[in-house]
Amino acid sequence: MLLEAVYHRPKLNWCYAYDGRTIHLRIRTKRNDVTAVSAMAGDKYIWDRSKTYVPMTKLASDELFDYWECEIVPEYRRLKYGFLLQKGAEKYWMTEYDFLKQEPENPDRLFEYPFINPVDVFETPDWVKGAVFYQIFPERFANGDPANDPEGTLPWGGTPKPDNFFGGDLQGVIDHIDHLSELGINAVYFTPIFKATTNHKYDTEDYMQIDPQFGDLDTLKKLVAICHERGIRVILDAVFNHSGRTFAPFVDLQKNGEKSRYKDWFYIRKYPIAVEDGIPTYDTFAFEPLMPKLNTAHPEVKEYLLKAAAYWIKEADIDGWRLDVANEVDHEFWREFRKVVKGIKPDAYILGEIWHESSPWLMGDQFDAVMNYPFTNAVLDFFVDGTRDARSFANALASQYVRYPRQVNEAAFNLLDSHDTARLLTKCDGNKEQMKLAVQFQFTYTGTPCIYYGDEIGLTGGHDPGCRKCMEWDETKQDRELFSFYRELIALRKKYGALRTGSLKFLSAKAGSTSLVYTREDENDKIVIFMNNAAKAKNINVSVPEERWQDIRTGDNVSAHSGVLSMKLPAYGCVMLRAL
Amino acid sequence: MLLEAVYHRPKLNWCYAYDGRTIHLRIRTKRNDVTAVSAMAGDKYIWDRSKTYVPMTKLASDELFDYWECEIVPEYRRLKYGFLLQKGAEKYWMTEYDFLKQEPENPDRLFEYPFINPVDVFETPDWVKGAVFYQIFPERFANGDPANDPEGTLPWGGTPKPDNFFGGDLQGVIDHIDHLSELGINAVYFTPIFKATTNHKYDTEDYMQIDPQFGDLDTLKKLVAICHERGIRVILDAVFNHSGRTFAPFVDLQKNGEKSRYKDWFYIRKYPIAVEDGIPTYDTFAFEPLMPKLNTAHPEVKEYLLKAAAYWIKEADIDGWRLDVANEVDHEFWREFRKVVKGIKPDAYILGEIWHESSPWLMGDQFDAVMNYPFTNAVLDFFVDGTRDARSFANALASQYVRYPRQVNEAAFNLLDSHDTARLLTKCDGNKEQMKLAVQFQFTYTGTPCIYYGDEIGLTGGHDPGCRKCMEWDETKQDRELFSFYRELIALRKKYGALRTGSLKFLSAKAGSTSLVYTREDENDKIVIFMNNAAKAKNINVSVPEERWQDIRTGDNVSAHSGVLSMKLPAYGCVMLRAL
Repeated sequence: MLLEAVYHRPKLNWCYAYDGRTIHLRIRTKRNDVTAVSAMAGDKYIWDRSKTYVPMTKLASDELFDYWECEIVPEYRRLKYGFLLQKGAEKYWMTEYDFLKQEPENPDRLFEYPFINPVDVFETPDWVKGAVFYQIFPERFANGDPANDPEGTLPWGGTPKPDNFFGGDLQGVIDHIDHLSELGINAVYFTPIFKATTNHKYDTEDYMQIDPQFGDLDTLKKLVAICHERGIRVILDAVFNHSGRTFAPFVDLQKNGEKSRYKDWFYIRKYPIAVEDGIPTYDTFAFEPLMPKLNTAHPEVKEYLLKAAAYWIKEADIDGWRLDVANEVDHEFWREFRKVVKGIKPDAYILGEIWHESSPWLMGDQFDAVMNYPFTNAVLDFFVDGTRDARSFANALASQYVRYPRQVNEAAFNLLDSHDTARLLTKCDGNKEQMKLAVQFQFTYTGTPCIYYGDEIGLTGGHDPGCRKCMEWDETKQDRELFSFYRELIALRKKYGALRTGSLKFLSAKAGSTSLVYTREDENDKIVIFMNNAAKAKNINVSVPEERWQDIRTGDNVSAHSGVLSMKLPAYGCVMLRAL
Repeated sequence: MLLEAVYHRPKLNWCYAYDGRTIHLRIRTKRNDVTAVSAMAGDKYIWDRSKTYVPMTKLASDELFDYWECEIVPEYRRLKYGFLLQKGAEKYWMTEYDFLKQEPENPDRLFEYPFINPVDVFETPDWVKGAVFYQIFPERFANGDPANDPEGTLPWGGTPKPDNFFGGDLQGVIDHIDHLSELGINAVYFTPIFKATTNHKYDTEDYMQIDPQFGDLDTLKKLVAICHERGIRVILDAVFNHSGRTFAPFVDLQKNGEKSRYKDWFYIRKYPIAVEDGIPTYDTFAFEPLMPKLNTAHPEVKEYLLKAAAYWIKEADIDGWRLDVANEVDHEFWREFRKVVKGIKPDAYILGEIWHESSPWLMGDQFDAVMNYPFTNAVLDFFVDGTRDARSFANALASQYVRYPRQVNEAAFNLLDSHDTARLLTKCDGNKEQMKLAVQFQFTYTGTPCIYYGDEIGLTGGHDPGCRKCMEWDETKQDRELFSFYRELIALRKKYGALRTGSLKFLSAKAGSTSLVYTREDENDKIVIFMNNAAKAKNINVSVPEERWQDIRTGDNVSAHSGVLSMKLPAYGCVMLRAL
């Protein structure tokens, strides 16, 4: 047994409360090394009476490791535990301190989950687990009210540039609400809509005002009300890491320098405020002079931003916040933010923009989820760039999955592109079938999928500004077949809980292979998904215990023969079968 | 290279801010496997310009692993990083996702410490790093005011029982303050002093009142003032996990059952409130009916307890709180507690009673330290029980050390016994030399040592109630030689910063051996400590680069010959030499 590979640490993703009664335990071992693992668990105050061995099952495997999991409901909400690892006849008991050859005599040196206090249980919003998101970049979605167009607005459909305007606004979204309803999405994420100077509005001038180019409070209220009528939730973008250069306190600071009463609202490294060799003398987002970093630990700044966070929920009834550059803001601020937001709307969705490992923000006291770019990367590596084979892809997903508690994975924000990346179809060099295969993976994986506006009708575009093109509203220029594809996929995801929160198991993900077979399964359904991520047709066989299956899209019946399902898939083909 | 052994995870003990500018990075590899490690680090927004390789050094090694560390001061407080691992010619770059054979082309998939926000930097109180604590169990320390003795108080010095009283009180501590001054301690931890029915007072009846048996607010104020005059800080015991059965809200609940307005102050599993087969129908500490668990998430409970936490700091000027059964109280409560306490006294010490891995409480938002029982266990295993040899002991300490950021280790509360364990001298079967050796280790290790009252004059006693014997004030019955020993040791620890916060390195800690040699070193001093943990004299040799040394107790000069220090130690002997 390779003891160096064995890993467990209390709390985090390794031992957490899934709900007010249930604890999940996980442990890591070297891949294909240990043959059986069980948790030795009980209440430390009545150890002899309560001690049991709970078998653990393999949750996932990645390149180097197997991950084991079990669920325990301790009667008195307290858990003392260790692990029994077996490799054939070789046995080790793992305590918090050592690996022992014999069962420890008492629980003193075991791991501990001291008490499940309900207030500490990390609950992510239930609706998110069933949501399909749609991301709108408001300046480029639809121009519903030409009266509010900024000076110099260009005709709809021109070439997007970092600094040009096309007049998109909130009324435009209202006007096209049928498009969203028809597609079937049930949540919208808007990039910033507050007063700012740029087209992307990430340089906020006033957090309490809708940018006049987009509308006003009434337009937003109307938009949210219409969305809610149709069962669509709305989240907005909170840019709290930095303000814009035209934000009144920063204007004051630029004018009055060290004498400004707002000098501690920002981080000034040196006066006067200037940019030297491309580096501002004050902290900013990146080194962007337009975006001075806010001192979110300052009581007045905190009060102002938290007031804004509360205001838009109370006034406009929005359903959550996406948090820009969330990782560079202090944790203390986010803890208070969560209290304010959840205090008003307990099931509000708090979604941080973090591109890397996000455990420190996903422990229940800060965010519900992050924009799952590690998922994006893995999907693109396999489906688009071919830099991962099926095995490496499955490994990457597993590594990512086991990093977080289950409730975090269930509410993860799984995107394949955004205003910050090239569009998926463009990354696929226009190969629509390839794109569709990646999207089918997105929609059959744990976590809430998000569609970047226009992807569903074939919009293309490279990295910013290309990906921020005007939405195409001329149906003859839209890819309606693609639209139908998305629509059907969304409907399937809504229909089958197994596709949303079912357990996932790879039946085939081989080294050197481009084909993938996996199951999603819950108490109602077991669905097996075949994917042929290659430019030519392929036969894929997998062993399954069930004989009778049905294609969930065509309704065709399919039978396994001698325990084997054999499917012929076209290039970039995907088949989803449900066990009957 | 054994990749399965390599471990790093952002934040926690692996990547943390030591102060507002400095980040410590750590990584784990298999013991004696990797030959060199460096951190590849820079600012992601100016990667090419800022990227550097920072060599890492071995911080510690335990049974299975080596732990490497480096310190980085990123110019703009942002850090993107990976690791370069080398084993001879074999090289791997570790990113957040993979081990690569080549240097990654860009920083996108590296680890990240996004921004050092000052408010998130975990600062433990500086004074704690230099403190020597003394723990007092007030009922048994000294009876200064017989007028407040409870009914049935027994003559001082009788046999301690779970339910008897000897009249110890706060005036008694005031009367014996010279004893503490003479000893040289500079901090006192009192077990509970608030109104309660038992002699240990862990069943609080009123959190706002000093138990009349101990004195009143004025006595406490006087005591704290006298301590402060002598440079002694005072921390009290906060029993917030549970109240006593005579706590008014629980009295009300017992009387009115489900109709009580206090029913949500506690966790009632079933009415009526009763004890069935030894199990109360309400949650308690352990299964102790006397100690009903408080619902610390309830706003009124929280307000009441936080008011108490604030009150005693404001009114009596105490310097911190020790938190009883801290691990079973919700994290949310402790976060608010920290804000309240530090808001009044920024350098107050918050010390949790947790016997196991405590990372979830030691991330800067809750406690400063925990009672370091894992340290206790390791020391007892080696010095007292002989269940660990020198190598295993050094390994256990290393495992424990690397679990936490440096500032946590520096403020750790290192005890060898307490009111909850047998006394050290008793565990040593009365072998005073053995006891002294363990104590010398305690006083030359990182973290604040604590002396349990009476240990310094040879008090004995087994597990509770034996360890709660009355203090011996008859000097002819005190072990004055032991007192002098403690006094000298305390003085040495105060004199040499290296003994408090210097780096620690084991020069000799061999398998099968009972002798130990290690150094403590800071910018001023390098001290080498020899210990012979055996019943007979022993010669111990170690290689050192320095030739000239001086015994820090005797002042004797000692020379290394041909780079070797050779010391003859008596049974349980210890020598400390400072490089000249």
